Amino acid sequence: MIRIGVDIGGTNVGMGLVEDGEIVAKCSERFSRAGGVEGCCDRIRAQAGELLAGNGRTFDEVEWIGAAVPGSVNREKGIVIDAYNLDFHDAPLRERLAERFGRYDIDVLNDADAAANAELHSGAMKGMRTAAFITLGTGVGFSLIIDGRIFEGGMGNGTEGGHMILRSNGYRCSCGARGCAETLCSAPALMIKARRVIKAHPDSALWRNRRKLNAKALFEFAKNGDELALRILDEYTDALSDYVASLMNLLDPEAVCIGGGISAAGEILFEPLRRKAYGKCFFRNHGKVIQAHYLNDAGIIGAASGVAKGR
Amino acid sequence: MIRIGVDIGGTNVGMGLVEDGEIVAKCSERFSRAGGVEGCCDRIRAQAGELLAGNGRTFDEVEWIGAAVPGSVNREKGIVIDAYNLDFHDAPLRERLAERFGRYDIDVLNDADAAANAELHSGAMKGMRTAAFITLGTGVGFSLIIDGRIFEGGMGNGTEGGHMILRSNGYRCSCGARGCAETLCSAPALMIKARRVIKAHPDSALWRNRRKLNAKALFEFAKNGDELALRILDEYTDALSDYVASLMNLLDPEAVCIGGGISAAGEILFEPLRRKAYGKCFFRNHGKVIQAHYLNDAGIIGAASGVAKGR
Repeated sequence: MIRIGVDIGGTNVGMGLVEDGEIVAKCSERFSRAGGVEGCCDRIRAQAGELLAGNGRTFDEVEWIGAAVPGSVNREKGIVIDAYNLDFHDAPLRERLAERFGRYDIDVLNDADAAANAELHSGAMKGMRTAAFITLGTGVGFSLIIDGRIFEGGMGNGTEGGHMILRSNGYRCSCGARGCAETLCSAPALMIKARRVIKAHPDSALWRNRRKLNAKALFEFAKNGDELALRILDEYTDALSDYVASLMNLLDPEAVCIGGGISAAGEILFEPLRRKAYGKCFFRNHGKVIQAHYLNDAGIIGAASGVAKGR
Repeated sequence: MIRIGVDIGGTNVGMGLVEDGEIVAKCSERFSRAGGVEGCCDRIRAQAGELLAGNGRTFDEVEWIGAAVPGSVNREKGIVIDAYNLDFHDAPLRERLAERFGRYDIDVLNDADAAANAELHSGAMKGMRTAAFITLGTGVGFSLIIDGRIFEGGMGNGTEGGHMILRSNGYRCSCGARGCAETLCSAPALMIKARRVIKAHPDSALWRNRRKLNAKALFEFAKNGDELALRILDEYTDALSDYVASLMNLLDPEAVCIGGGISAAGEILFEPLRRKAYGKCFFRNHGKVIQAHYLNDAGIIGAASGVAKGR
């Protein structure tokens, strides 16, 4: 038996065939906003058919289909409430996918919850009862683990820790509020900060490399001791550690686990982050800040690995 | 049968005899920091004896003793981890009380958790499964309700939502960090803000009344339409709504329930707070901001009403 994990993103729809928690085949197609929910579901059905056929498998062998979405989801009802990057609002995604696949047992969940699922089942949070999971990428995803399961919110909206407000009257967030964690800790937020600093230093190596500069390159400069890159990173971890320490004080978790593209930076990020977050933490005997195990595939593996459908 | 609820505060030790969830008798004595944990426990034992005798009751009739403390508590172990206002650190309060009372089934819990307990059993949060509870007083207390019970943290420290960081490099908090919710939303924080504003307006009614001005008086001025008082309140609810909206986004609770002395202000506080918090909330179908039912007696009633000792 095989499982299909789908990770619907603002630019691509990733999909994988998962067996024993490992991806055995995967593919990625462009996501078209114009096609809406119907077009997206048509695409997913076709993509699944091709992926299975290409690997000599059939739909009869599929025991589980899970689809992860960047937005608020009512998992029980299989409805996407608001996914701004996809322009899905109150979209009955499970029902639409059910029509295509001829089965109703399709798991629709938030993408950070999916990634947390993967970490919980076979990654960095394995065996944990209470943990907060953050993904740092285009946005700031969040998932909360209580009693060893993903907590799905009290009103059926899920949890959106990326929209904790860390700065009154800060930058405007995509959600409409100001100063959310997402406006300070996402990859775009880091690069906005970087460009602002670099602009004032036209004699720097970062300035000379500014056209091809992205988050990954910035961390490379920092690793090589570039002082300006280290200064930008210092400001970034100031804000990120406010967010992490807030979660530690609020929930007293065993761990705050950090995934997403930015987390790939490794110790150049985690060393100052731990030092600052632990320094701001209320408790003496607090949990740890840890790096996620899975990176880009977490959404696919997590969507496919659904079992505990939360509370 | 009767229950004893004890509310140990930085200035007073309140105590009540509780029957069917109602206080039938209560008393209050000064708390002496100098006496330490031993002195405090001696005092509590003597106070309980007097209170019972004064009401014609005996220790044989006492079915429950609960003691609430302003600080982090490991409820399972009955240990006060850090209560800065009492100067209790790693204090085995249950054991010390057990020696005085000759029984070991004494509940030691955080004071905000105790107050939340009261609201959960017979107050504003009755019947709720997921809720956040805030007390606005000398400090900012916090309690988290998950699955209809008080969530006691993942590492046995409890939850300290009052130390969510809302302002990077804000005012220094008693916990050592900067910009915690407590530095913005407590009664002292409100009065610091008020004095700063009033100072610049020596022609105002608030200036003329500055010597006897406290939070309660300030809200009275606002209710009577005093523009300066309304401006101070407006700044205060800006910060408080950041905190409340953050909790709503993070936990998707059925309610954020607000108690403590400040909550007695009523609609002059709650109307702008709701408007701002709902405006900043990520979810369209979100929970409510509600006023706590109990005020000063919440700690005593809640400490006495322990049954569900949480997870």
